[in-house]
Amino acid sequence: MEFWFEFASTYSYPAAMRIEQDAAAAGVAIEWKPFLLGPLLNQQQGLTDSPFNAVPVKGRYMWRDLERICDRQGLALNLPSIFPQNGLRAARLVLALPPEARPEFVRAVYLANFAEGSDISSEATLSRILLRLGHDPDALADRAASETVKQDLKDNTARAAALGIFGSPSFVTDDGELFWGNDRLDFALDWASGKTQLKTIQEVEAP
Amino acid sequence: MEFWFEFASTYSYPAAMRIEQDAAAAGVAIEWKPFLLGPLLNQQQGLTDSPFNAVPVKGRYMWRDLERICDRQGLALNLPSIFPQNGLRAARLVLALPPEARPEFVRAVYLANFAEGSDISSEATLSRILLRLGHDPDALADRAASETVKQDLKDNTARAAALGIFGSPSFVTDDGELFWGNDRLDFALDWASGKTQLKTIQEVEAP
Repeated sequence: MEFWFEFASTYSYPAAMRIEQDAAAAGVAIEWKPFLLGPLLNQQQGLTDSPFNAVPVKGRYMWRDLERICDRQGLALNLPSIFPQNGLRAARLVLALPPEARPEFVRAVYLANFAEGSDISSEATLSRILLRLGHDPDALADRAASETVKQDLKDNTARAAALGIFGSPSFVTDDGELFWGNDRLDFALDWASGKTQLKTIQEVEAP
Repeated sequence: MEFWFEFASTYSYPAAMRIEQDAAAAGVAIEWKPFLLGPLLNQQQGLTDSPFNAVPVKGRYMWRDLERICDRQGLALNLPSIFPQNGLRAARLVLALPPEARPEFVRAVYLANFAEGSDISSEATLSRILLRLGHDPDALADRAASETVKQDLKDNTARAAALGIFGSPSFVTDDGELFWGNDRLDFALDWASGKTQLKTIQEVEAP
């Protein structure tokens, strides 16, 4: 199952922290797919900022809801002074890493953003994380700045749009079923592991 | 716990169909609170239509997601040709009924909208439902058109806005905790029955 995520996304933090464990329990392999949500929000909704900033009443609710969710999951929550943070550099670094090293790095970046209140757009923060995880920050910064990796991230974002993705986290099963939101991770894993299918064969047409 | 609902809301349908049973199992009493979401969406987000119509990519996802949710819950889903439907008349009828008669009527209206594809803005549809449930449709139509009931619905909608509500279904516990969405019904019942509280005493300030 594909796990599509944008680093600035608040609800992607609890999802990223639990998906590997939950997917292993369900016997589902996860492909980690970073993308940029900003361009999609702009194309699809004309937004130039997070919807949680654009609609304050939704933002206030989201921060409280996130606090409750993190508390239930035993996750720290300490917000940075900037929201949303720019996740471009971090997303490129994900793609510069070998696939097997990505989950650990992604979790560390989400923790830096939402538990430590660090600036994840800064090279210093990201280099510190890479070093701690045993990687070569300079070599990876070079690789992340390459045309290949830049294009990979653009391709991911275009693919996300083509899949009908409009938010993060999103999950796409092998048979193309899209699930949106941390709330849907369990459903998506049920679907991916064959535990859930539509009992009734019907396609609902939007009126 | 208060259950705040707007009849046009799609995700409120599965919530309305299960809340009485789930709340009884959790030992939580429910107060059914109809309100009009349209004025709130307009005031808070400048919307003049359902966000699912305003943002087609979200609408397409929602209909598929609703199909999956109804299927898991054993609920029929047959959409009316109009979305969203105007729930004003039905909402006033809820308030015209005595409190103990409201849940059954609300469920019947949601079924008419989303399972039977009926026009719930029409007096004929609503009178048929009232008659079937053993009420006097004419007397209730008169009562629903009274200034008292009109004002009650206006007061509910103003109260919803004051509580920070921006969508339906929403749940508000006795201690003022707001939960939004069918996905949060179980959390809200846990909270209302004292099973869940924040383990850490902290208020997260939005940056």
